[in-house]
Amino acid sequence: MAADPKVINDKMAKRMYQPYLEAEWGFINHWYPALFTHELEEGDTKGIQICGVPIVLRRSKGKVYALKDQCIHRGVKLSAKPMCLTDDTITCWYHGFTFDLASGKLVSIVAAPDDEIIGTTGVQTFAVEEHSGMIFVFVCDEDWDEDVPPLAADLPLRYPENNERFPHPYWPDTPSVLDEHSVALGIHRKGYANWRLAAENGFDPGHLLIHKDNAIVHARDWALPLGVKPVTDQAIALIEDDNGPKGFLNRYYTDHYEPILENEKLGVKAQGTVPRYFRTSMYLPGVLMVENWPEDNVVQYEWYVPITDDTYEYWEVLVKHCKDEQERKDFEYRFENLYKPMCLHGFNDCDLFARDAMQNFYADGTGWNEEQLADMDASVVTWRKIASRHNRGLARKPKGVPGVLKDQSYRFAEASEGSFE
Amino acid sequence: MAADPKVINDKMAKRMYQPYLEAEWGFINHWYPALFTHELEEGDTKGIQICGVPIVLRRSKGKVYALKDQCIHRGVKLSAKPMCLTDDTITCWYHGFTFDLASGKLVSIVAAPDDEIIGTTGVQTFAVEEHSGMIFVFVCDEDWDEDVPPLAADLPLRYPENNERFPHPYWPDTPSVLDEHSVALGIHRKGYANWRLAAENGFDPGHLLIHKDNAIVHARDWALPLGVKPVTDQAIALIEDDNGPKGFLNRYYTDHYEPILENEKLGVKAQGTVPRYFRTSMYLPGVLMVENWPEDNVVQYEWYVPITDDTYEYWEVLVKHCKDEQERKDFEYRFENLYKPMCLHGFNDCDLFARDAMQNFYADGTGWNEEQLADMDASVVTWRKIASRHNRGLARKPKGVPGVLKDQSYRFAEASEGSFE
Amino acid sequence: MAADPKVINDKMAKRMYQPYLEAEWGFINHWYPALFTHELEEGDTKGIQICGVPIVLRRSKGKVYALKDQCIHRGVKLSAKPMCLTDDTITCWYHGFTFDLASGKLVSIVAAPDDEIIGTTGVQTFAVEEHSGMIFVFVCDEDWDEDVPPLAADLPLRYPENNERFPHPYWPDTPSVLDEHSVALGIHRKGYANWRLAAENGFDPGHLLIHKDNAIVHARDWALPLGVKPVTDQAIALIEDDNGPKGFLNRYYTDHYEPILENEKLGVKAQGTVPRYFRTSMYLPGVLMVENWPEDNVVQYEWYVPITDDTYEYWEVLVKHCKDEQERKDFEYRFENLYKPMCLHGFNDCDLFARDAMQNFYADGTGWNEEQLADMDASVVTWRKIASRHNRGLARKPKGVPGVLKDQSYRFAEASEGSFE
Repeated sequence: MAADPKVINDKMAKRMYQPYLEAEWGFINHWYPALFTHELEEGDTKGIQICGVPIVLRRSKGKVYALKDQCIHRGVKLSAKPMCLTDDTITCWYHGFTFDLASGKLVSIVAAPDDEIIGTTGVQTFAVEEHSGMIFVFVCDEDWDEDVPPLAADLPLRYPENNERFPHPYWPDTPSVLDEHSVALGIHRKGYANWRLAAENGFDPGHLLIHKDNAIVHARDWALPLGVKPVTDQAIALIEDDNGPKGFLNRYYTDHYEPILENEKLGVKAQGTVPRYFRTSMYLPGVLMVENWPEDNVVQYEWYVPITDDTYEYWEVLVKHCKDEQERKDFEYRFENLYKPMCLHGFNDCDLFARDAMQNFYADGTGWNEEQLADMDASVVTWRKIASRHNRGLARKPKGVPGVLKDQSYRFAEASEGSFE
Repeated sequence: MAADPKVINDKMAKRMYQPYLEAEWGFINHWYPALFTHELEEGDTKGIQICGVPIVLRRSKGKVYALKDQCIHRGVKLSAKPMCLTDDTITCWYHGFTFDLASGKLVSIVAAPDDEIIGTTGVQTFAVEEHSGMIFVFVCDEDWDEDVPPLAADLPLRYPENNERFPHPYWPDTPSVLDEHSVALGIHRKGYANWRLAAENGFDPGHLLIHKDNAIVHARDWALPLGVKPVTDQAIALIEDDNGPKGFLNRYYTDHYEPILENEKLGVKAQGTVPRYFRTSMYLPGVLMVENWPEDNVVQYEWYVPITDDTYEYWEVLVKHCKDEQERKDFEYRFENLYKPMCLHGFNDCDLFARDAMQNFYADGTGWNEEQLADMDASVVTWRKIASRHNRGLARKPKGVPGVLKDQSYRFAEASEGSFE
Repeated sequence: MAADPKVINDKMAKRMYQPYLEAEWGFINHWYPALFTHELEEGDTKGIQICGVPIVLRRSKGKVYALKDQCIHRGVKLSAKPMCLTDDTITCWYHGFTFDLASGKLVSIVAAPDDEIIGTTGVQTFAVEEHSGMIFVFVCDEDWDEDVPPLAADLPLRYPENNERFPHPYWPDTPSVLDEHSVALGIHRKGYANWRLAAENGFDPGHLLIHKDNAIVHARDWALPLGVKPVTDQAIALIEDDNGPKGFLNRYYTDHYEPILENEKLGVKAQGTVPRYFRTSMYLPGVLMVENWPEDNVVQYEWYVPITDDTYEYWEVLVKHCKDEQERKDFEYRFENLYKPMCLHGFNDCDLFARDAMQNFYADGTGWNEEQLADMDASVVTWRKIASRHNRGLARKPKGVPGVLKDQSYRFAEASEGSFE
């Protein structure tokens, strides 16, 4: 590789990912994780926001429904004070506008059952799928009129079917959230940066430095290099199959990459003696897979879900095949006592810190022009181009929803009460 | 009635209340409540803000004076650190500029008694009236040069003089804050929404749903319908007399309205067995009267006083005739132990919640275009038109006062200290 | 003097200080205090911001270095998580970009020691001087290519060399922070107003009123007048020597000024019997000297250092000659137990309050046009003109740094945690 910094930073390169630079509010018409299964029990109603779209989720008779979380009448969130009078409807708590869960149609108004507006209008609905303990929503524009693409098209590559294409001699097949016996355990939380800064941190081969002092690294004596250097133009494999996921894969632990073990000038050497083989790949709309991480037979998925243009939901999910209840319990025990505190928090908290630390530089548009990228950023540039080519639409700056106007007095009031989220 | 939703929502209707849509900062040149009498004792000085106008109130020798709360010299609030060196003046605590309470004229400067600027300039003053325990201020533009209209023109209709016009067979005459023996008791607090969202919630015949679980309703077993439906074109009476208040009255408990007691499709029925007869009417600049509420012989007034374009002061006032000291004490006792906790808080807190819940939808202008009104909103549309026709001026977006620039660092500092209001 | 208010306030006068009105972000290419010596011990790294420029300070082998606190790669603050792998470099904690402390050049990248970008770029550096316990930084534009002016050109006049020009019969020679035996003790803290409002409060001869109730005034029975009145056109002396500091001096305690001891109309008289002779002078880029204050042989310096356009760092520093260790200890004792609580806090806290109280009026530009100045403001106008004539550049509104976009969600999050600064 050895990309000339002038090439990496030049304007021609930037032009190739211009759409990405306009994706402040995320990519619309894609599948995103919404909640964990355990966060939406029977009869629960919860509101979230993705790409600036407020969405209310409700589980009724086992099935999850997703509707736009904004009453058509006076615009309040249905989720602000959930009210469901029948199994197949959701009612706005304010004036009683009642919508069919499946179609979104306005089917009644509590105190005006004969109003002529009934049956003539409704709220947008969203496709939902639930797998391995996760609820996914297809977040689309109001005028989306195509078939909903398969969820698999917005998830990482699967194994064993890609074994020949991307061999992994150092670890067993990577589980998928779509596999029959998969269990997905994880956490999600809000980060205060644009979602793209989070996404770029996820697969960043140049940021290992921020993890060098992490307790898990030392506890396990992991032999992590200072960094990795692409040495052929095959180091990054593009994934652009017609009907499959779109992204790229870093061919770590092959001849295409060289680990950097020492910086003589600065007197720094890689430490640790136990190999920890892993591989990163990244897919639209913003999902990372770290294969064989943090341990054999486990995979870490991460999503960087846009909430607004300056907040994102950071999802960290570990997936494992559990063939029986005992294996599931063992996984849950290990998750609670090792993975969650030491990896998802201890290790990845550093990433959360790093992403938010970039926000000032990028928030006013300066960063995209002033950043000085280096060889290590080849995959960042690859991601920006792939994302520009294959996204199904740029989310528009929304109207009339939380987070558009940021300087409203009620936000200060919330902050002063310690309740701002 | 049975208004066609297309008619209610169409652009022609909106054009008829265009001025209302531009009244973000409220209607200027009207009377507003400023403080309760007990909040401004002899010698007290307090600052408030109405329609973006900072106002300092001072009581001197029993009389209340109101001046613009912004020193002409360097713009600080006189009320920030009140200083009054004589009975008839107020002095700016910073550089000693001293203004006559009655005329607002600059009459001296503490450390520069001979300065040539003295006598040549001053601050704006405002007319004040005090009745039944409430202080009202006529908030006007600096260039207002007409006579100050009577306070009664900005207050609800009075009884018995309107008995024939608007009969009320189910309850005694409604007291007025202007009556000789009236006592007004109440509370006021800040809401985080535009004042118009608050005003429209006040008289909204479609929002009874949010009160169905209120403790007072169940404790008294009140027979409140699910809602009311206008059935003739006389359901809403316009009030547009030449020299009187401007507004409208909902002719509840007449043949013009039909209560909705059941929604079969949703399986909901009105509950309660004890009739609670009441009637709502609404007047410029934004004052609601709920006659015979929450009990016989009592009336509830509400004001939605614009502070800025995204905050308002919510006033809830109960008025009753008390012919002697014992009756006043009984009223105060009942106010403290029943009305205040169960009605002004328990019942109306739901309204406060509902108004703030609309703010995101309307704050960026989206709501006024995207809302889908229904039959129940006939009175909302009536209000918007009346308010557009009869307001005495739109408050301009102010300059140099709190709340114009919302994203100032000191506001974050206040919020972080828990002191933002 | 007796300036006609029409003249003081007229547009012609404003035109003479138009550059000052555009200096929201401060004057660039000047020396500013950055930290006290004791705040940056050997090996310490700290981030500050001046005129919108983020600056990281590091002390290595005794010497203090100052660099732009923004990594060239992805824009994070180097000071966010300080990392120094060698004595002569600072390394970005995120991706290992490593800069030479003295030159700012990119000399290595931890995990990419051979990257071609190394040696081709770097971060801006700033000149540093350290005197009497204070660290000063020359904050300049990136394209500043002239010699760095001497620090003395941005500090107050020195004595005894100016004794003849500005005699001071009532007190001993004023110490300078540049004198060999000087010790500077003080505090600094953030104020929530534009720096110019703070600066104008510093020397303001009309604001003595806010100090009339201060405990130190009454404890020492200081005879402070209500105010002072310029009576000749020599009252304010301009200081505009070619190579020296630029500013002005108020000739207090001379025939050019008359103390105001009484305001008959308001019934106010000056109190106190013990003379406290002092003199104020003010210099670019915004440093005040109060000679002989708060006691003989001591001088108070104040700086109003722009952080952003709505925050400033308020520096209060007392300087005294201490010829030996015992004198230094006595000064420190007196500082901790008298000067700091009673003067820098008790007395000057009133000034902090007053400056922030002006911010609403000036923040949206209104104040500069609407203020009504009086005779007492002759020195304010003088300052604005001098500052307009002699500043070395207006700081531009910065990009990509904290405080440019004020309404970011992370600021609300910080505020809600009580951690906003």
